[in-house]
Amino acid sequence: MTYCVGMMLDHGLLLMSDTRTNAGFDNISTFRKMHSWAKPGDRVITMMTAGNLATTQAVVSLLEERTKAPEDRAPSVMAAPSMFQVARIVADTLREVIARQADTGQRADSAFNATIILGGQIAGGPQRLFLIYPEGNFIEAGADTPFFQIGEMKYGRPILVRAYEPSMGFAEAMKLMLVSFDSTLKANLTVGAPFDYHFYQRDSLCLGPSGRIQLDDPYYQTISKGWSDALKEALHGLPDFA
Amino acid sequence: MTYCVGMMLDHGLLLMSDTRTNAGFDNISTFRKMHSWAKPGDRVITMMTAGNLATTQAVVSLLEERTKAPEDRAPSVMAAPSMFQVARIVADTLREVIARQADTGQRADSAFNATIILGGQIAGGPQRLFLIYPEGNFIEAGADTPFFQIGEMKYGRPILVRAYEPSMGFAEAMKLMLVSFDSTLKANLTVGAPFDYHFYQRDSLCLGPSGRIQLDDPYYQTISKGWSDALKEALHGLPDFA
Repeated sequence: MTYCVGMMLDHGLLLMSDTRTNAGFDNISTFRKMHSWAKPGDRVITMMTAGNLATTQAVVSLLEERTKAPEDRAPSVMAAPSMFQVARIVADTLREVIARQADTGQRADSAFNATIILGGQIAGGPQRLFLIYPEGNFIEAGADTPFFQIGEMKYGRPILVRAYEPSMGFAEAMKLMLVSFDSTLKANLTVGAPFDYHFYQRDSLCLGPSGRIQLDDPYYQTISKGWSDALKEALHGLPDFA
Repeated sequence: MTYCVGMMLDHGLLLMSDTRTNAGFDNISTFRKMHSWAKPGDRVITMMTAGNLATTQAVVSLLEERTKAPEDRAPSVMAAPSMFQVARIVADTLREVIARQADTGQRADSAFNATIILGGQIAGGPQRLFLIYPEGNFIEAGADTPFFQIGEMKYGRPILVRAYEPSMGFAEAMKLMLVSFDSTLKANLTVGAPFDYHFYQRDSLCLGPSGRIQLDDPYYQTISKGWSDALKEALHGLPDFA
């Protein structure tokens, strides 16, 4: 499984993904699930993938190939005129990859499926955040639903639902993200550190702060331990049942 | 779906269940999922069910019928000599009901399945808590895993994992339960109020405090609203990402 969150904020887009993949319970690996394309001043595109690793890697490779040779740039995410068109290209690529697998050889229900969170901005347009389904259609985040989760999303959802604020800055939103990821990690073996993140600053049109947070990262450890105590204290502060 | 939690505490057993059932998203109803049998001074047995409603109601009816007429009391949960034997009777009944459905008419994968949390105490034995699977086998709670959840369990799990303490009293454990239920309710349409609860006091061998908490219950509203604020404050108290 996987856990990825894409969050639309007033100040930008924060995206975070875990890196664990598993083929069965006894075969786990670490793979990057976050990929970015950028041309400073023109566009920044970041996507995160959940689902069948062969499918998601093929999607990334196809998108990547099409950005390399100028004559092969149609359709390329680096040439698309808007984020909506980028989402279409990614969605079509995803659908094609799944269809190609499903047609050949063994059939396995849903086994080739994948879901993608796509965020970014292209010069002249606003920053946008999409959730792309394996069927090749997609939805966009708005003020009512300002964040998307894919993969093992239930454990980390309550804290997002309750504490997310669009006005959060990068530092505060990272804290919220790590609490949500830590809650998932503590409950599910198929989600694992390290976590990749990228914060795209609205209208900057260049890659923002990004990096990888390891399990033994001192800040992550502070959050993980601090959150247990903070939760207990928060619970303690509420009135007992009479 | 459903959400039920059974919690083993130093002072007793706390069990809570929601009441929402749904056949599709457009057909929801309210049904009691908690059932108790008691003979003061001799035994108290409480069970909670998740899964196919026809299956769980049939299980309850069969167990109930067998407790009525003395000559038909074998095997009855009211006559079994230990909680382990009670768990066996319940598990066998569950397996029988599922097998009977699965044999006749249409096949639907897992559609007749159900899972049961069973807790209680019989004179001369300790209080015990079991999780019974549709296959008719079961596991028992111990010091390492002192609570069981069935149904839509992921949303409400992180707070249980972090804040549960075996030394909690009834009033404090109820608070924790309601926070866990509220987190689930806020994220999933298939779990709904009112919530039924029963607190069995260890070694009392009689029914303890029990009741039903409605959505507009003032205490529940206090917890639901207070928890949002408390979570935000808890998050605020942690250091921001540098």
